Amino acid sequence: MPQRVLTGITTTGTLHLGNYVGAIRPAIEASRKPGVESFFFMADFHALIKCDEPDRLAHSSRAIAATWLAAGLDPERVTFYRQSDVPEIPELTWLLTCVTAKGQMNRAHAYKAAVDAAVAAGEEPDANVSMGLFSYPVLMAADILMFNAHKVPVGKDQVQHIEMARDVAQRFNHLFGQGRELFTLPEAVTDAEMELLPGLDGRKMSKSYDNVIPLFEGGSAALKDAVARIVTDSKLPGEPKDPQGQALVTIYDAFATTEQRAAFRAALRGGLGWGEAKQQLVALIEGQIGPMRERYAELMAHPEKLEATLQAGAAKARAIAVPFLKTLREACGLRPYTSTATTAAAKTEKAALPVFKQYREADGKFYFKLLSAGGELLLQSSGFEQGRDAGQWVARLKREGWVADAPVQREASEADIAAALAAFQED
Amino acid sequence: MPQRVLTGITTTGTLHLGNYVGAIRPAIEASRKPGVESFFFMADFHALIKCDEPDRLAHSSRAIAATWLAAGLDPERVTFYRQSDVPEIPELTWLLTCVTAKGQMNRAHAYKAAVDAAVAAGEEPDANVSMGLFSYPVLMAADILMFNAHKVPVGKDQVQHIEMARDVAQRFNHLFGQGRELFTLPEAVTDAEMELLPGLDGRKMSKSYDNVIPLFEGGSAALKDAVARIVTDSKLPGEPKDPQGQALVTIYDAFATTEQRAAFRAALRGGLGWGEAKQQLVALIEGQIGPMRERYAELMAHPEKLEATLQAGAAKARAIAVPFLKTLREACGLRPYTSTATTAAAKTEKAALPVFKQYREADGKFYFKLLSAGGELLLQSSGFEQGRDAGQWVARLKREGWVADAPVQREASEADIAAALAAFQED
Repeated sequence: MPQRVLTGITTTGTLHLGNYVGAIRPAIEASRKPGVESFFFMADFHALIKCDEPDRLAHSSRAIAATWLAAGLDPERVTFYRQSDVPEIPELTWLLTCVTAKGQMNRAHAYKAAVDAAVAAGEEPDANVSMGLFSYPVLMAADILMFNAHKVPVGKDQVQHIEMARDVAQRFNHLFGQGRELFTLPEAVTDAEMELLPGLDGRKMSKSYDNVIPLFEGGSAALKDAVARIVTDSKLPGEPKDPQGQALVTIYDAFATTEQRAAFRAALRGGLGWGEAKQQLVALIEGQIGPMRERYAELMAHPEKLEATLQAGAAKARAIAVPFLKTLREACGLRPYTSTATTAAAKTEKAALPVFKQYREADGKFYFKLLSAGGELLLQSSGFEQGRDAGQWVARLKREGWVADAPVQREASEADIAAALAAFQED
Repeated sequence: MPQRVLTGITTTGTLHLGNYVGAIRPAIEASRKPGVESFFFMADFHALIKCDEPDRLAHSSRAIAATWLAAGLDPERVTFYRQSDVPEIPELTWLLTCVTAKGQMNRAHAYKAAVDAAVAAGEEPDANVSMGLFSYPVLMAADILMFNAHKVPVGKDQVQHIEMARDVAQRFNHLFGQGRELFTLPEAVTDAEMELLPGLDGRKMSKSYDNVIPLFEGGSAALKDAVARIVTDSKLPGEPKDPQGQALVTIYDAFATTEQRAAFRAALRGGLGWGEAKQQLVALIEGQIGPMRERYAELMAHPEKLEATLQAGAAKARAIAVPFLKTLREACGLRPYTSTATTAAAKTEKAALPVFKQYREADGKFYFKLLSAGGELLLQSSGFEQGRDAGQWVARLKREGWVADAPVQREASEADIAAALAAFQED
C-alpha cells in the first residue's frame, strides 16, 4: 500500500518567493515520488478561526489554490481539494470531539500561548480564545484520520497536534474498533532541511520584515524591482566579490543547478558587478517563475476552471471519505434502522434479558420472581407484607447480583441465576 | 410566518409512562396547534457524548423513534428527523465554533458540574470532561439555528444553553450578516405546568427509583403487573377511601376526562376496592396505550418503514438546511471560486490597491514612490543612502497612513494620497 501523505495549505495571506522555495516546491516534488499517495487540501475551515473578513478569505483561497496549481501541483496525480467541500470532515470532527479529553486540549501550545498573552496583558486567561482556536486540534485530527494518512509534513510547532491526532485515533479504535484498527496512526514528518530563503535585507524572508520578493504579484516588473533592492556590499564592477554570506547568492542558489552555482560564484570572484549579477538572478528566477505566473494569471482569469479542478478533487476525496465515514458511523452506533447489526443487537438484547415479576397473591402478600429470558423460573421470593419491601429486594438484586441472605428460593442452578442477574448489571 | 418550535429527543434509555405523560404527549399535542411549524429530531450526535456502547445507542434510537411515531407524532405534519442524517448540522457546528468564545463554555452548568464533581473526588478539574461535553452547547446552537427556530421547549437546566445559542447567533449576525439577521434569535420555553407522574411508590416516576410503569415494554401484562404494585392504603373493599394524595388517583387523572375523574373519586369515596380500582386504571390506560403499543410493535417489526419515515424527514429538514447553509457559507467567505461575490471582491481589491515602488537611481541612492491603482504618481520620496531607510519609511506609511514629516513630495491631492494610504491599513 502506498504511503499516504497529507498536506494542509493555509488559505490566508499572499505568497512570496520564500513560501515557494521553502514549502510549495518541496511539497510538489515530494508528491511526485513513487509509492506516495498525496493529499493536498485548502484548509479553509481552519482559516475561519482567525478570519472574520469573508471577502478576503474567499479571494485568498482562490489565489492560493491557483498558485499551487500554477507551481506544478498535478491534480491528476494527487488529491487536491478544499476542506470545506468535504462535509464528512466536520461530521468526523464531531465523532472525534466525543472521544477527545478536554485536558488534552488544555495542553495545546497554541491555546497556552493565547492564555499566556492574555494573562500578561492583565486579562482573563480565555479573554481572546474562541472555541475554534481551542478545538482546532480536533478538526486537524479529522483532516488527517479521514484519509488514514501515514505521514503529515508539518513545522515543529505542529508536531504536538499530530500526537493528539494519534491519541484520538487510538481512543476511537479502542472504543469502537472491536479489534479493528479503524484509523491509521499518523506520523509527523518535520523536514530539518527546509530551505529558508533570505529576504532583501538578508534576514529570513517574511512579510513581517517587509523584505519579501513577491511570487507572482506585480509581474516580472515587481520581481525586477525587488531584486534590485537586495542589499549587497558596495564593491564596484570589476572588483572581486566574496559570494559567501550574500543574500543575493543564497537566493540564486535556490533556483540554480550545481553548475550554475559554481559559475555564478566564479563570476563574482572575477569581478561581476552587482547590477549585472542582479540581472542574472532575475533571468534565472523569471525562467522558472515566469511560466508559472502565466498559468496563475490564466487560472485567476478563469475561476470556473479552477473551481472545476477543485470540484474534481473533492469528488476524489469524497470517494474515500463517504464510505469510510459510513464505516465509522456504523462502528459508533449511528446506524440506519434497517441495519442488520441493529437488528442483531436488538435480538441479542431481547434474548439476553431475564425479567423480575412482582405481584400480589390471594394471601394479600407481595411476591416477586425472577424468570429467565425463556420464561424459566429462576428465583421465587417469600411473601412480604409491604409491596415496597419486595421492590427493594428486586432493586438490590438487580444492582448487586446475588445476595446471600435474600429471602428467595433458588429454582435453578446457581450459574444460571448468577448469569441472569449479571445481565441486569450490564444493563 | 408560523412559529417554528424545535424539540430535541434524547436517544438513550427506554421510556416509561411518566415520559409519555410529561414529555411525549404534550409535545405531540403542541405540534397540532395551528400556526406552529414543529421540528422534532432524534439527538443521536448528542447521545454519542455519553454513550460508548454502539449497539445500545443504535437500538435505543430505533425504539425511541418508534415510540414517538406510535404515540401519534405525525411525520406529515411535523419535520421528524435524525440529527445525524443532516450533515449540515455538524458543518454549521464548526462555523459557530469559530465565533463562540471559550469563556462562555467555561460557564456552562453541565461542564461546571462535572468539574465540581472531579474536584470533590480529589481529581483534576477536567479529569472526566470530554470535548463533547464541553462543546455540546455549540452543537445545540447549530441544531436550533439551522432551522431558525423561534421557540425551544426545554427543562430549566437547558435555559442557559438557549441563551448561549442566542449569543452565538447574534455574534454571527454581527460579523457576517452585513446588516441582515441571518439567524433568528431563539427563545427558551419552559413549561411550568409539565405533568410529573408519580411512580408506584408515590415518588416521581423515575428509573433511578425503580418505580416505573413501562410504556410499551412487556405488553399489557407488564402494565397490569406494575399497576398491581402501586402502593395504596390498606382499606378494604366497601370502606370509603380518600382519593386525595393517592398515586393511583393521580395516575388515573393523567388519562381521564373530567367526568371520569369525578366518577372515579366518587366510587372510591363510595367504597370501591383498590383491586377493582386498579383494574379500572389498567383499562383506562390500556384503552389509550394499547393501540399505540400495537403500532410500536409494528414499527419495531418493520425497521425499513421506520427508516423510510426518518429518511423522508431528513429530506424535509435538508430542504431547509442545504440552501440555508449555502447562504451562511457565502456570508462567511466559504465560496465557490466562480461566485460573483468573490469575483467582485477580487476586483474591488485589485482596483483599490495602490502600490509603493522602491528602486535605486543612477546616483546610487534609494528611492520610493507611491502610485495609485491606476498608475498615477501620488508621492515621490527623496533619496536615501541606505535602502533599508527607504523600506522603513514605506513600512511606516503603510502602517500609520500619512506622516507629517515623511521625506516625500506630494504629487497629488491630499485626499487622494490619504485614500491610497488608507487602503494599506485596511489591508
